[in-house]
Amino acid sequence: MQATLERPLNGKLFLDDLHVGQRFSSGAHAIDEHQIKAFAGDFDPQPFHLDGDAAKNTIFGGLAASGWHTAAITMRLLVDGGAPIAGGIVGAGGEISWPKPTRPGDVLQVECEILEVTPSRSRPDRGMVTMRCETFNQRGETLQILTAKLVVPRHPA
Amino acid sequence: MQATLERPLNGKLFLDDLHVGQRFSSGAHAIDEHQIKAFAGDFDPQPFHLDGDAAKNTIFGGLAASGWHTAAITMRLLVDGGAPIAGGIVGAGGEISWPKPTRPGDVLQVECEILEVTPSRSRPDRGMVTMRCETFNQRGETLQILTAKLVVPRHPA
Repeated sequence: MQATLERPLNGKLFLDDLHVGQRFSSGAHAIDEHQIKAFAGDFDPQPFHLDGDAAKNTIFGGLAASGWHTAAITMRLLVDGGAPIAGGIVGAGGEISWPKPTRPGDVLQVECEILEVTPSRSRPDRGMVTMRCETFNQRGETLQILTAKLVVPRHPA
Repeated sequence: MQATLERPLNGKLFLDDLHVGQRFSSGAHAIDEHQIKAFAGDFDPQPFHLDGDAAKNTIFGGLAASGWHTAAITMRLLVDGGAPIAGGIVGAGGEISWPKPTRPGDVLQVECEILEVTPSRSRPDRGMVTMRCETFNQRGETLQILTAKLVVPRHPA
């Protein structure tokens, strides 16, 4: 297939190929109770992430995934094609919120939009991109909003 | 042991026990190449998180942990006593940045400070706390800064 301006190298986009308003969609990932408890056991061992019965009497009212688990799955969906950035997805930081908990049985999917594209003044080989990524479940409920600042390479000279 | 005002229930702090400027320190967690690659394989399978040789020619210049891995370890350190909040550590969201990559052999430790304590107007049983948590390695280098908004219960009436 002939490379196009928008997808110049293995379908990956350099800074020069990105523009405000550009959108990307990821594949989907189904999360279950086993995954939720395994992640929580490693990184967030609190009752509402580990035990459905214990979770009933908490603020979550039932088993919920760690927010960091939702973030990690979101990243996996972006890496697996949800955000085809040249050089990989390298985040300097960002803002994150979790409007609703991720529950067992949810099917996660990510939609991203480019908000800002800023070439670096000091480093002519790269720039900064602000990308807003919303993680939905199969009912269209927003589970996570991540506004990330990414380091993105420019086209090799 | 007699409960004190600051640590009223199993050493856990309610909204009423928290004040601006209050600080907490976590234990430590040593991260190695195996952990970095395992997390990346699950959630962030990019060359600079998976393969030391491939990482040399990337922006990281060597194997580095996924930022989400640093975030997850930070959470574990907070849950394991780094932030003794009653009702658990329940984040609504926050700001995150990774000033330096986490490397194999780094020993992570978290220091938190309470920035804001705001009782809810609509929900008299809880409030919002803003907590800034810095994750350091053994050389005192800042790997992550997380400013989190937490939902914290008030003392039972």
